[in-house]
Amino acid sequence: MEPLTLYVLDLHPDVPAAQALRRVPPRDAAVTASDLSATRGDGIFETAAVLHGRPQAMRAHLDRFARSARMLDLPEPRRALWQAAVDAAAHDMRDTARTAVKFVMSRGDDANRGVPTGWALGYAPHNRVGDAPPELDVVTLDRGYRHDVAQTSPWLLQGAKTLSYAVNMAALREARRRGAHDVIFTSIDGYVLEGPNSTVVARVDGVYVTVPTELGVLPGTTQADAFAALAAAGHRTTVRALRADALRAADALWLCSSTRGMAPVRRLDGVPYDVDAAITASVNGALDGREG
Amino acid sequence: MEPLTLYVLDLHPDVPAAQALRRVPPRDAAVTASDLSATRGDGIFETAAVLHGRPQAMRAHLDRFARSARMLDLPEPRRALWQAAVDAAAHDMRDTARTAVKFVMSRGDDANRGVPTGWALGYAPHNRVGDAPPELDVVTLDRGYRHDVAQTSPWLLQGAKTLSYAVNMAALREARRRGAHDVIFTSIDGYVLEGPNSTVVARVDGVYVTVPTELGVLPGTTQADAFAALAAAGHRTTVRALRADALRAADALWLCSSTRGMAPVRRLDGVPYDVDAAITASVNGALDGREG
Repeated sequence: MEPLTLYVLDLHPDVPAAQALRRVPPRDAAVTASDLSATRGDGIFETAAVLHGRPQAMRAHLDRFARSARMLDLPEPRRALWQAAVDAAAHDMRDTARTAVKFVMSRGDDANRGVPTGWALGYAPHNRVGDAPPELDVVTLDRGYRHDVAQTSPWLLQGAKTLSYAVNMAALREARRRGAHDVIFTSIDGYVLEGPNSTVVARVDGVYVTVPTELGVLPGTTQADAFAALAAAGHRTTVRALRADALRAADALWLCSSTRGMAPVRRLDGVPYDVDAAITASVNGALDGREG
Repeated sequence: MEPLTLYVLDLHPDVPAAQALRRVPPRDAAVTASDLSATRGDGIFETAAVLHGRPQAMRAHLDRFARSARMLDLPEPRRALWQAAVDAAAHDMRDTARTAVKFVMSRGDDANRGVPTGWALGYAPHNRVGDAPPELDVVTLDRGYRHDVAQTSPWLLQGAKTLSYAVNMAALREARRRGAHDVIFTSIDGYVLEGPNSTVVARVDGVYVTVPTELGVLPGTTQADAFAALAAAGHRTTVRALRADALRAADALWLCSSTRGMAPVRRLDGVPYDVDAAITASVNGALDGREG
């Protein structure tokens, strides 16, 4: 990725929104060495795709950001402030077709407990150069948890989009070690979960399926809009638990994420899958056409 | 914690060690917003206790740092460089009795893939004000994994000391919610694991026991030195798996960590435990007397 623009937020509750945004050079140091983002991965984030300066699906991103904040006992994010930060970063990049804004709220500096820190970084992603998303070789990897861990053990933060992504990054390295690009995590009791930074969509018997958040997966912002587009085009969609062996029986698979859109899986654990280029192009066209 | 001194490391392999350390004001921003420590918790760390300017157990900390680096596919840390950074930070704090140095290696700036970033932050911890460690109220919490996950699923990074500590911090908040100070994690199949930032020691039938790293726990630097002190004083120590119900039968419990030393548990899940003040004082005296 290439950092293009950066806004640091002053999240002290007494600071008016109009004074809370500060633009800083995107490659300068902006975070202290005692910030709990950098030392503990203790915070939350979202990444919004930006098309010609317009951030996409911000309502869904801000909803999920607030949900993650609650799961981590962080203060409720002030939506207007975060929206303003993302809008400002996106506007700075309006001359580039496809960019993204990552926005981060950490628990704050360990020396200054109680006041979160935040920033919005606009950047050019490397994983989607053109308009067509990549076709993915994917492996399934065990996430180590049961399917019901979000209910039994909420301190494991399954379903929150936290900054503690070391395991997700290690899983992606394991995929590359196996000659693949990406991962679908499964529970130890055999349920399909999600990718390290994507939502799984399977077409099973002609129905587009994704799995429920009760399994400890993130609510997919891109998947939700993809399902809306599919439904609008007359396709059937549903949310239900999927056993890992049901993936083998799917007639097509995709991984959905903000920066890649709905990316088709061409191979899962070495087994080829048909790529439905027409549906993929149609859904990604609809995603690109979203307003806000 | 109160930041007291900070050194940023230039980890480019071509930079000579003598030019790799840069002292910066400890409360200034030192990390970029695209550093993978801050955005992904993708890195490793150690915290060394410092007594009157002398960092303690550095050989064990550097061994574990190198072990964590291997588990995360990070470059092998240059020991002399990290030792120099910690020594410099420790020396700056020589007028304070009890301080600590946290040293961090992240995978680097996402915009500059391949070169890790690093720093060593000297600070005054808040969790050990005097010479006696606190007596702890502890709860057991499920970590969600089986006891053998480090063998079956190495991408889950169990046993590596990573920057992705959001779950550890959430577990500590859950402990506070339950009126306790700290946590002992257990596996879903009933084995004792470790604390969010400590090693468990139980005295069972007069023998001091900790659990093996094969269970996906960190090798405890403080626990190792505590066991050496106990053995030198004629006590029996052993490393073996412990079932969670064996904790109930222990006649005393401790949590070991760099900044707190060997801290006695006075209550586990609401059940009182005897605190062995004599052994606790004797071991902590030995820990304070360590050379390097």
